Amino acid sequence: MENVISLKRHSVVRAGKTLEVFEAIKTRRSIRAFTNEEVSEEEVRKLIDAARHAPSAGNIQPWEFVIVRDPERKHRLAVAALNETFIEEAPVVIVVCANEVQSGLGYGARGIALYCLQDTAAATQNMLLAACALGLGTCWVGAFYEEDVRKVVKVPKGVRPVAIVPVGHPAEKPNPRPKRSISEIVRYEMF
Amino acid sequence: MENVISLKRHSVVRAGKTLEVFEAIKTRRSIRAFTNEEVSEEEVRKLIDAARHAPSAGNIQPWEFVIVRDPERKHRLAVAALNETFIEEAPVVIVVCANEVQSGLGYGARGIALYCLQDTAAATQNMLLAACALGLGTCWVGAFYEEDVRKVVKVPKGVRPVAIVPVGHPAEKPNPRPKRSISEIVRYEMF
Repeated sequence: MENVISLKRHSVVRAGKTLEVFEAIKTRRSIRAFTNEEVSEEEVRKLIDAARHAPSAGNIQPWEFVIVRDPERKHRLAVAALNETFIEEAPVVIVVCANEVQSGLGYGARGIALYCLQDTAAATQNMLLAACALGLGTCWVGAFYEEDVRKVVKVPKGVRPVAIVPVGHPAEKPNPRPKRSISEIVRYEMF
Repeated sequence: MENVISLKRHSVVRAGKTLEVFEAIKTRRSIRAFTNEEVSEEEVRKLIDAARHAPSAGNIQPWEFVIVRDPERKHRLAVAALNETFIEEAPVVIVVCANEVQSGLGYGARGIALYCLQDTAAATQNMLLAACALGLGTCWVGAFYEEDVRKVVKVPKGVRPVAIVPVGHPAEKPNPRPKRSISEIVRYEMF
């Protein structure tokens, strides 16, 4: 089944088309192994373009992205992310940052502690789905020392690194992860 | 242009197909006016199914959803959301909740203050895109009194309401909002 989906996706992407929404949502996997094939600047721009179309509180769009291709800098990001070395094996690593100053100006403490994180997460999810649709693999990495990442890509005060997303061509086909069932996560009218 | 997209989407949905990823990402709008047309239980399940396929830290899936159709309860949610009355005009209102206990067990304070919010935001974004693909309109509402929402749908301790999403058939076609340009939000290698 995975192979069928993968082959289908490959031929779809080669034909210049991309995936249908539900197919992208359901077939996206966290990819932690990448081939040597490059990721073009045009592809990166498509990912960022998808990201910036996310909704945001008050349309503030508190997102900033750092595109990292330099091997030494990718290595330092991998070290900051608890030595997850697969990160530096991706041709491109995108550091997603939340602009706390902007969300704070608009909405105070709730802006900084909630909207800013939700808005950048929605943008990140758009990016992962767009990558999947283009046949690229990604992994949303949230476990890292923020101060270290801050130093590596020189994140200014008032901006916070919230996710590291390596992007490359998948060199693995992970099985679907088990998911909580719909009946387990849904209530009607109240808890 | 909006009309063309809307007509195209309508015919696509009627043909049993849904939107391509980039089209959904780029044509999704925040909808604040709804027709009287119902939203089926099957459609709601498709939205939740999309939501639960989001990535989450450690695959913890710290999301819980409350589906509200009762007019009185929808009214109370609208009041809790700073009197945004369009919320109660939607046939269905989904309250997205973050299970802080689960994320906290896995990742402590960072789990509660970050992953839990990011994971539920990714799930919410999946839901909005899925709705758009089905021809449904949604609006991500983040501004509400949490304690009031908690009472309305009886959210237990350790779980936090993080978003209110009215869902219905769009009765408006908002223009695209202005977006920050790619060059404004992207840096290469560092800030």
